Amino acid sequence: MAWLYALMIDPAASDDVRTTFADTFTAVDPSAPALSVGELSTQRGDGIFESIGVVDGHPQEVEAHLERLAHSARLCDLPAPHLPQWRAAIAAVAAHCGAGESVIKLILSRGVEHGPTPTAWVTAAPAADFARVRAEGVRIVTLDRGLDSRAAIRAPWLLLGAKTLSYAVNMAAIREAKRQGADDAIFVSSDGIVLEAPTASVILRIGGTYVTPAPTGSILHGTTQLSAFEWLEAQGLATEYREVPASDLLRADAAWLLSSVRLAAPITAIDGTALPVDPDFTGRLNAYLLSPRD
Amino acid sequence: MAWLYALMIDPAASDDVRTTFADTFTAVDPSAPALSVGELSTQRGDGIFESIGVVDGHPQEVEAHLERLAHSARLCDLPAPHLPQWRAAIAAVAAHCGAGESVIKLILSRGVEHGPTPTAWVTAAPAADFARVRAEGVRIVTLDRGLDSRAAIRAPWLLLGAKTLSYAVNMAAIREAKRQGADDAIFVSSDGIVLEAPTASVILRIGGTYVTPAPTGSILHGTTQLSAFEWLEAQGLATEYREVPASDLLRADAAWLLSSVRLAAPITAIDGTALPVDPDFTGRLNAYLLSPRD
Repeated sequence: MAWLYALMIDPAASDDVRTTFADTFTAVDPSAPALSVGELSTQRGDGIFESIGVVDGHPQEVEAHLERLAHSARLCDLPAPHLPQWRAAIAAVAAHCGAGESVIKLILSRGVEHGPTPTAWVTAAPAADFARVRAEGVRIVTLDRGLDSRAAIRAPWLLLGAKTLSYAVNMAAIREAKRQGADDAIFVSSDGIVLEAPTASVILRIGGTYVTPAPTGSILHGTTQLSAFEWLEAQGLATEYREVPASDLLRADAAWLLSSVRLAAPITAIDGTALPVDPDFTGRLNAYLLSPRD
Repeated sequence: MAWLYALMIDPAASDDVRTTFADTFTAVDPSAPALSVGELSTQRGDGIFESIGVVDGHPQEVEAHLERLAHSARLCDLPAPHLPQWRAAIAAVAAHCGAGESVIKLILSRGVEHGPTPTAWVTAAPAADFARVRAEGVRIVTLDRGLDSRAAIRAPWLLLGAKTLSYAVNMAAIREAKRQGADDAIFVSSDGIVLEAPTASVILRIGGTYVTPAPTGSILHGTTQLSAFEWLEAQGLATEYREVPASDLLRADAAWLLSSVRLAAPITAIDGTALPVDPDFTGRLNAYLLSPRD
């Protein structure tokens, strides 16, 4: 894989009033060793992350990603990320992205085992070419997430609203979807409520309303879904956050998976049943998502 | 943290018939960078691990750990670990452990993103001093695992029987236990079945029988629990694997958390209710667990 750039961050304290942070960044060769074997990110998946889409050097929705990073840090009892420092790091890395689509990843790890501070780094890489999947869509299978839809409320230690580095289950779900002949998955709670895809949010269009599962703590609040809802609302279209029973999936007259880098992928089939697609609308949505957004 | 030794493994193919693997091992400075930022272990918690107790240079129950590593690899669709190679790596690392208690960790990561092969490494470090916790025990809180006891059967993509690097929830549960004034946690399924501790197995003594939750896929099969059961059975004591309702916890006349490095920690209280302890038996159990075991 070609990388564009990577830098390690020496995390600033929350009361650090500097306005420039360049001396807390250290560029590293993304293909060379940069992390020690004692890293808790690697030993325990113990940390949080964000993936930011970058178009022609412009990182999209930086503030929404930083807000979610801070939210994840709170849920995981990690020190609050110093947002001006992260903002500066994103800008420093974005300067290496050039034309076309790229992805910037922010990682905040609990640090080295028994070490004094978190470890943090930011990488940039070219994005995969998603033109085809944005046009042709994805076949979906629903997969049981095992958890009921109230688990997050009862058991905050499950970290369901945090974007942690512990993504082994998310990756296994995508492998399972492919094993079943599909492209991606949608997690459904054990009591039949639509949650999210392993690396994306779900939007359904039902009776002219754009519906997404309410981010009540069981799922991540998708930054791209948020941005799409802003765009829909600006056009006077109806949007709704609510509890979505799995039976609603096949009631949709169009549906999408939304994520920061792949953007809007129309869903063409759910559990083997074809779903209508709306190529014109999907094209306009992706054109918006590819325009500079803050 | 003081480290004793670390080596990277260049994973051998399953049909590799070499009898020596020294040229596939590269010693690395455990405190220096050894892993690249593209590591999927660190980006996704996407890999598996084992922690092996080492006493006076002797790694305990190596075969049980290697069997579980291979089992975890199968559940995670990772290439089968070449066990003779891993055995040789453990021996090479154990040679650096010296007197007293140490811990050897095996890590098999899916590798670098888009890379051709897994990444693998083995580390050794001095164990923490657990003498006091083995004698004085741990106060436990039960925590809802969100999942019901049948989730593993319905949803193998949840990887519940695999010892993956995605341990953020396990770590959060231990923090929650401490927040509640306890030392450790026991996970209970949403339908009230005892599962396991975040980093240990549970053994209860009820009416003279040593009972542990059946490893039916919802939990890891503890290597130290297995070893303890062998020792109990050799003395003619009754052991039992079964479904353990949470109401059985307070019926126990003694209970322990068992793990590879801390060994047997007697449980002194569950959710604030004191539990009887058996210092003499616990002492003998830990003396056994500290003796060389294969």
